[in-house]
Amino acid sequence: MAKLVLIRHGQSAWNLSNQFTGWVDVDLSEKGVEEAKHAGELLKQSGIEFDQAYTSVLTRAIKTLHYALEGCGQLWIPEFKTWRLNERHYGALQGLNKKETADKYGADQVHIWRRSYDVLPPLLKATDEGSAAKDRRYADLDPRIIPGGENLKVTLERVIPFWEDHIAPDLIAGKNVIIAAHGNSLRALTKYIENISDADIMNLEMATGEPVVYDFNKHLEVQSKTKLD
Amino acid sequence: MAKLVLIRHGQSAWNLSNQFTGWVDVDLSEKGVEEAKHAGELLKQSGIEFDQAYTSVLTRAIKTLHYALEGCGQLWIPEFKTWRLNERHYGALQGLNKKETADKYGADQVHIWRRSYDVLPPLLKATDEGSAAKDRRYADLDPRIIPGGENLKVTLERVIPFWEDHIAPDLIAGKNVIIAAHGNSLRALTKYIENISDADIMNLEMATGEPVVYDFNKHLEVQSKTKLD
Repeated sequence: MAKLVLIRHGQSAWNLSNQFTGWVDVDLSEKGVEEAKHAGELLKQSGIEFDQAYTSVLTRAIKTLHYALEGCGQLWIPEFKTWRLNERHYGALQGLNKKETADKYGADQVHIWRRSYDVLPPLLKATDEGSAAKDRRYADLDPRIIPGGENLKVTLERVIPFWEDHIAPDLIAGKNVIIAAHGNSLRALTKYIENISDADIMNLEMATGEPVVYDFNKHLEVQSKTKLD
Repeated sequence: MAKLVLIRHGQSAWNLSNQFTGWVDVDLSEKGVEEAKHAGELLKQSGIEFDQAYTSVLTRAIKTLHYALEGCGQLWIPEFKTWRLNERHYGALQGLNKKETADKYGADQVHIWRRSYDVLPPLLKATDEGSAAKDRRYADLDPRIIPGGENLKVTLERVIPFWEDHIAPDLIAGKNVIIAAHGNSLRALTKYIENISDADIMNLEMATGEPVVYDFNKHLEVQSKTKLD
């Protein structure tokens, strides 16, 4: 048996200001820090002993992981960061105010961009300001895989190789794994783990700062799912 | 050319209470947190772009690294933690008050334990309370290499394999490396890098929270050493 714990990062500064965030490296708000510390308390109470931590290359998820691990006295466990656990890239919508965008493009269009499984947002070009292609943290990636915008389908397609190569082998080896990430990268993982349909997954909302615990057997079958709160 | 930055963690709770610490996982004090944040400011001003971070498996060094990297906007770089960068293990002295220990064993004896290169402190047995052999974070180590107490010589002998296997290859490859660690593991690294004698190294005091920057050429020869302050 192995445990997998998923934590969605707490409130960020742009959640507060109602802007599309995606890959923009926005920090946690004060409330977000409190949510992450609370997750650490819940993990401490759970008594789970972790062997491996994974997170994205975005500060709000990394800090959530650190606060959570510190809270349960396990900041010392191995940590690996990957762009594959990043939030869904929101393309040219990144940085825009959600309400202003709805006023400009219509609420229906914004709803489609936010809630459809396979419709892409307006894309950023590699040469556009704010493109991930200009960010040093993605300098080692094949330029063809640096997204200019993603839907959940594309997000899932780049999250799952990380599951296959890292998370699944750890769980099969009996290791307890903690992942701090984002609403949509965790939605992708959850879809894959629970085999949720394309239509149903968009209605799944994971609460921020409330760890979800899966128990797996050695055949990587889910034995139980618990929310710590 | 590649840069290596060494940071000694800031004040810990036991620095304040004047206790021998070693491998005991004592947290930073408030002043220690401020020192780490200040190091982050200095790194930001330096403009150094890091490729790899290394730290020990002790919370005070890990948190120092995180505050420093956050301060310079580089919390996202790869991080690797290793027991090989831990503080010198202080054996059976760990947890004792330094003044009380001097009263009991004599100031001369305590001075020898603290300042001799190759005299071991009184050792902890693997079965003793507080032994690292009972700590889950060292569960993967060959029991024969889990120390019951170290002098600087022994500390250096377990730090240098990490230099050889990780730090040196990174620097030769042109990567900029940051290491947050402890008074004695950094003393060991400094001795090795600068070829300092056994007698002289014990007089080297590295200031807490003040990053030291080495520039190396591709032959791993030191071109310059600068203290950021």
